[in-house]
Amino acid sequence: MDNYTLLTDFYEHTMANGFHLSGIKDRILYFDLFFRRVPDSGGFVIVCGLEQAVDYIRNLRFTDDDIAYLEGKGVFSKTYLDSLLNFRFSGDLWAIPEGTVVFPGEPLVTVRARAVEAQLVETFLLLCINHQSLIATKANRIVRAAKGRRVLEFGARRAHGTAAAVLGARAAYIAGVDATSNTLADRLFGIPASGTMAHSWVQLFDDEYTAFMTYCGLYPESASLLVDTYNALRSGVPNAIRAFKDSGISRGSIRIDSGDIAYLSGRARKMLDEAGLKDTGIIASNSLDENIIREVLAQGGMVDAFGVGEQLITAGSSPVFGGVYKLVAMEDEKNAIIPKIKISDNISKITTPHFKKTFRLYSRENMKAEADLICLHDEEVDDRQPLEIFDPDYIWKRKTLTDFLAKELMVQVFRGGELVYKLPNIEEIRANCDREVKSLWDEVKRFENPHNYYVDLSQRLWNEKQRLLAAGK
Amino acid sequence: MDNYTLLTDFYEHTMANGFHLSGIKDRILYFDLFFRRVPDSGGFVIVCGLEQAVDYIRNLRFTDDDIAYLEGKGVFSKTYLDSLLNFRFSGDLWAIPEGTVVFPGEPLVTVRARAVEAQLVETFLLLCINHQSLIATKANRIVRAAKGRRVLEFGARRAHGTAAAVLGARAAYIAGVDATSNTLADRLFGIPASGTMAHSWVQLFDDEYTAFMTYCGLYPESASLLVDTYNALRSGVPNAIRAFKDSGISRGSIRIDSGDIAYLSGRARKMLDEAGLKDTGIIASNSLDENIIREVLAQGGMVDAFGVGEQLITAGSSPVFGGVYKLVAMEDEKNAIIPKIKISDNISKITTPHFKKTFRLYSRENMKAEADLICLHDEEVDDRQPLEIFDPDYIWKRKTLTDFLAKELMVQVFRGGELVYKLPNIEEIRANCDREVKSLWDEVKRFENPHNYYVDLSQRLWNEKQRLLAAGK
Repeated sequence: MDNYTLLTDFYEHTMANGFHLSGIKDRILYFDLFFRRVPDSGGFVIVCGLEQAVDYIRNLRFTDDDIAYLEGKGVFSKTYLDSLLNFRFSGDLWAIPEGTVVFPGEPLVTVRARAVEAQLVETFLLLCINHQSLIATKANRIVRAAKGRRVLEFGARRAHGTAAAVLGARAAYIAGVDATSNTLADRLFGIPASGTMAHSWVQLFDDEYTAFMTYCGLYPESASLLVDTYNALRSGVPNAIRAFKDSGISRGSIRIDSGDIAYLSGRARKMLDEAGLKDTGIIASNSLDENIIREVLAQGGMVDAFGVGEQLITAGSSPVFGGVYKLVAMEDEKNAIIPKIKISDNISKITTPHFKKTFRLYSRENMKAEADLICLHDEEVDDRQPLEIFDPDYIWKRKTLTDFLAKELMVQVFRGGELVYKLPNIEEIRANCDREVKSLWDEVKRFENPHNYYVDLSQRLWNEKQRLLAAGK
Repeated sequence: MDNYTLLTDFYEHTMANGFHLSGIKDRILYFDLFFRRVPDSGGFVIVCGLEQAVDYIRNLRFTDDDIAYLEGKGVFSKTYLDSLLNFRFSGDLWAIPEGTVVFPGEPLVTVRARAVEAQLVETFLLLCINHQSLIATKANRIVRAAKGRRVLEFGARRAHGTAAAVLGARAAYIAGVDATSNTLADRLFGIPASGTMAHSWVQLFDDEYTAFMTYCGLYPESASLLVDTYNALRSGVPNAIRAFKDSGISRGSIRIDSGDIAYLSGRARKMLDEAGLKDTGIIASNSLDENIIREVLAQGGMVDAFGVGEQLITAGSSPVFGGVYKLVAMEDEKNAIIPKIKISDNISKITTPHFKKTFRLYSRENMKAEADLICLHDEEVDDRQPLEIFDPDYIWKRKTLTDFLAKELMVQVFRGGELVYKLPNIEEIRANCDREVKSLWDEVKRFENPHNYYVDLSQRLWNEKQRLLAAGK
């Protein structure tokens, strides 16, 4: 792996140096990573990217060259620079496992560590979780729009760099996409790579039929013929039908990459069926996203698989996932926890203080998720008793849950710097994601105006927040 | 560097294998990389990313493990797999230098190579040029909106992965941004990294004044105090003023990261001035982009520097740069060039065939760029004679240029696989970008409804395109 130790905001170092010089470098701090808004005004987010964040933290070392570079900036103390030689992450970290459905305001990651360590991991943690959660959430929208049809991730060429291409493919697969065009994503993560031909293939032969026949001869098991190099209905589909029949291939597919997908796919389906090629599939591509896919299907488009590129790999309609990393508590010299709050002129930027944990409350009747409850770290939820929950902003909105199951969302990942969590493999994460999405009510999964899932605070946590708000800090 | 040889779409390999088995692997092909639409409906694009594409091509090697992986897919021939062991790029490549202003339809890169080589470099070339051109173009919009005020790139935590963070910072700097928060971008490219404090710094001290005083003591030369942890005008700015005065710092700055930037900056400016801190700067951040910056300035906001994060590093309002890579010609066995066209049901997807070069035509009077002319590879433009150019879609729209200078845009980068271009350093590229943007008329640089810059075809090229369109291929 490349050395990403210096992929931090510069202020992490100015602050860390300041912690050294102010005698607070070893103070124990608690930071929460959380987000405030679901991209695309959706109902939920799929959290993703923990594995890469864990790799980073485990490998976090400063080389002599890194330290020499920092020294050259002329603003850091010798005591700080010297300390970096033996720098290791020695703290605790809790996180919600990848593939889990999460909501605004919930801690996705909580870090408890010495001030310097807790601060230095901020940028990379955010980068990992923000990027892959964004793509997983978008990809799941696309997968749900396709209603069981195959979705293929085609975005590498429009991704924002190499990591976006490879880890975007990873996040998309976790979220339910079936395959990728990205060979390296297959090599690294075992995501099935597939792909057949570009327009250049067709252009290289004397005619379209010869290009198709040649390809069918080479790949009889997986031939997918791109039919829109010249004219899809007048030339591409008829030539594909001839080539499939002449080479005895009944289970191939055609791909339409331009024009009116709903119309062209319907006409192509009819032509294939009339030629006796009922098992020949139709793949559509060309700047698709969940909205276009829903429109194509609503208009009767006959598409068996969608190739989705730029709009998935960039989360084109809502390309920012705004996770933040905020101080929520510190420990005094007797290790008592002192909650911390950030009070902003923007109400939405006020943080929820303290070391916390979150329970998801499921109805035992159907195992649907009903609400999440953020509690203080030492609270427990007794799911054998009725539980009254309330909206933290509009506290007269109350609801009593009975016959429910409470499940804690976060797992401990690092304890004293040691990895204590067995990272699941990608298939396990993908299966988790599938189960998680199924645990939501359809109302939360609506594309437009989804139901606002309840994320409430326990009475004790709410009281603490009010106390700090009243005190003004 | 990591091994990105397999960061290709899988179809590059199915096609390349097909070239081997069909006896056309050594056929010489010409591909153009170009785009069709300027992001954000802007008037121009700044091309960027060539250096990383060149690195990739120079280092393109298949390891034994890469080949074993491909073999395991079970679809590639032994002759193809064996050939990969000694695979090198041995072709020619021309490109428009980084930092140059470019327009839709122009070849940004032209590759002339054996079929297998020309095909295999497609994905990575597109990924490099698409990503960095997107960010450079966006960043230049933001820089122009700031009208000479400093712009700081703060986006690492919201970037789409590590490469997006680091190379996004590179593209932004080329486009005129002054500094980055990304330490690794400084280390790798010498982009000045800067940064001071997060809200956590303020929260860690008993009170805001102490946090500020401590920071001023540590960094008297560069103290920038974040004033909105509690309440910007009632607490943050007054405490910053006290701290600056008590520590004798007159050239520090404050940063406002939430709330109404236009209002708060005006009030803060007045408070600083009244306290005699006329040289203390104001930095604004918080989801800024070119539109918000223009609004803030139009409303009299007193901002000296803008910290721009997520909207720059993701090109949030238009996050896809749709560069494509299309076959435009091949050579027959006598090395005669046979032009190739792709005719699509979408008119905008029809390609301009042939091996080409592009001239930019400048007025000698003021050295402003007047039009670009795409020609056949063997054409020259004689700028001592009047030149009639015409719109390739509406050919009655004609214009005669006199007193102009013609400059060819592309340079040769690889010849027979050898790098023959001296890659400029980042400061040279940045200076080129600055000159390039200055060569445009203001009408082309408008944010809304910019003038459509002329990109015309020479008469000979236009005739060739018409001939192929009429022939239907």
